[in-house]
Amino acid sequence: MSDLRKDPTRGQWVLVRPSGGSPPVGQACPFCPGNEGLTPPEISAYRKDDGASDGPGWSVRVIPEADPYFRIELDLAREGVGMYDKISPRGATELIVESPRHEDTPATMLNAQWEQVLWMYAERIRDLKRDLAIRDILITRRHRQPGSRITHPYSRLIAIPIIFDEVRRKLTEAREYFQYKRRCVYCDIIRQETADEARVIWETPHFVALVPYAARAPHEAWILPRQHACSYEEALTPASVADLASLLGGYFRTLARVLGDPSFEMTLNTAPNRNAKVLPGEWATVADDYHWHIEVTPQLERLTRVGGIYVNETPPEEAARRLREAWSQPGHQPER
Amino acid sequence: MSDLRKDPTRGQWVLVRPSGGSPPVGQACPFCPGNEGLTPPEISAYRKDDGASDGPGWSVRVIPEADPYFRIELDLAREGVGMYDKISPRGATELIVESPRHEDTPATMLNAQWEQVLWMYAERIRDLKRDLAIRDILITRRHRQPGSRITHPYSRLIAIPIIFDEVRRKLTEAREYFQYKRRCVYCDIIRQETADEARVIWETPHFVALVPYAARAPHEAWILPRQHACSYEEALTPASVADLASLLGGYFRTLARVLGDPSFEMTLNTAPNRNAKVLPGEWATVADDYHWHIEVTPQLERLTRVGGIYVNETPPEEAARRLREAWSQPGHQPER
Repeated sequence: MSDLRKDPTRGQWVLVRPSGGSPPVGQACPFCPGNEGLTPPEISAYRKDDGASDGPGWSVRVIPEADPYFRIELDLAREGVGMYDKISPRGATELIVESPRHEDTPATMLNAQWEQVLWMYAERIRDLKRDLAIRDILITRRHRQPGSRITHPYSRLIAIPIIFDEVRRKLTEAREYFQYKRRCVYCDIIRQETADEARVIWETPHFVALVPYAARAPHEAWILPRQHACSYEEALTPASVADLASLLGGYFRTLARVLGDPSFEMTLNTAPNRNAKVLPGEWATVADDYHWHIEVTPQLERLTRVGGIYVNETPPEEAARRLREAWSQPGHQPER
Repeated sequence: MSDLRKDPTRGQWVLVRPSGGSPPVGQACPFCPGNEGLTPPEISAYRKDDGASDGPGWSVRVIPEADPYFRIELDLAREGVGMYDKISPRGATELIVESPRHEDTPATMLNAQWEQVLWMYAERIRDLKRDLAIRDILITRRHRQPGSRITHPYSRLIAIPIIFDEVRRKLTEAREYFQYKRRCVYCDIIRQETADEARVIWETPHFVALVPYAARAPHEAWILPRQHACSYEEALTPASVADLASLLGGYFRTLARVLGDPSFEMTLNTAPNRNAKVLPGEWATVADDYHWHIEVTPQLERLTRVGGIYVNETPPEEAARRLREAWSQPGHQPER
């Protein structure tokens, strides 16, 4: 049986679960069109011709993970174990297959394909937030991770009954900043960075891509929407999604060219579920002082840390200049 | 120039510094006896015969790191960069060479050698805490880290002008627990774990070694002193140091036998410097509600995390049972 267990000395949650549940992956890629029978039944998909579920013809397809960290069918239970606390891993783990083309990568995907993926992210988040046992949702996109078994492009959505540790930190800091300044910390970052320009990678009408002042990873990028809003899935519009798709595609193509297609992790950060049933110790209120954003961390597995302090030997100003210069050169558009 | 920069969205510090400073390592191991001239002048050493500094005859030797993260000669300066904050990386980075024998590992070192290393840890912490610009000190011991250039056994001491991020979390949680319960959270863990026994690896008169309830890594171990004290360097006695050396040596030999000499990181956690000059936003008071301890995390580079939540597929109760059984079998004592 799996448990979410809390470390009382760090206030941090750990998912403890039995090992070895992942089913073996055969010769055929389970995410390729025509192999839909190799995955569990789909949750959602975009199809041009309104074809049948679990057949080919889709452009983006969402399936449950075969050996999920979090399960929708569990009851939500919180209990003590002496001085300790545990919660059942009630939630959802979904895989969003980003393209029918097996060989696609974030750097080769057309902007129009990214648009569909970004809409699907929003749709899945909206749907899962109707489940009041779900407190927080994170979408991560790992590229070329060491040890990953499936190379077909996909993102992972994880929905859980507590607030993610990283998200809680950010919510706390955003709230403290807001209470002191009466301004959003992300809005202030956008103002200072676009005035300064040294760490800006690229600007569009709706978004700014920048290397953060205290970047943990060389060539790390944040994509911030200029319009203040805490929830991605509520803020996305047809105009902004096209803009975001072109910015994401541009960054991934530039990264591939400058750094030779490195591994990276992208995370989509949106506010927690405002309607969720609140557990003791969890956030009771809406995160209106939060600001949704996307972070991309290249070569996460190689980051240096001492006692929780990251060491970054590529100054953000230098990384931003490199990315900006490569971006503006011709030839970074996809071939197709 | 190096800076400690604060990420205002996470409240987390990042050391940003120019790259490529590490001097090349030649054929000869700079940490072996006879090669003392290949390192900067030593800071401290234990010698049986009172031999001269920077010559052979030592059993434990401390040197400054050649390309240090933190430097003692810098002025401590804290300044704003618009909305951001930065601090000069004033501090110290020292390497504690644990043994004159190049091929020694934590699993082969004699208990008597470990005793000397543990005394040296305490001596260096006491000395550095006299520097009132130093707020916090962490000693880490990495074994078989991917990409490490020197295989001769050594620990790294880092002393910095702020509180380490990981330490701040633990200080906060320990304080909140104490304020609510009027008891130390680590003392309560010792009471519950020794009564329960399922996660205990080994007990000695002065210490308990256990797999924590919410272990982030398979076979992770914490070593907790039974006697409540926040500072390692003040608490160590001739009786407890012998006890601790035998416990550490026993755990490392067991780990090598059970898991085939895996990589690991050991951290020694002691309270921050109670006399340091306090910077704005830093802890102003003594951490008497804290409890010094040692953590060993095997295969740190392979840990799985989603949104800051660790996923551990070896339940702590199973890991503790395996380690306990292997420990009590004959033959885990070192050969020498």
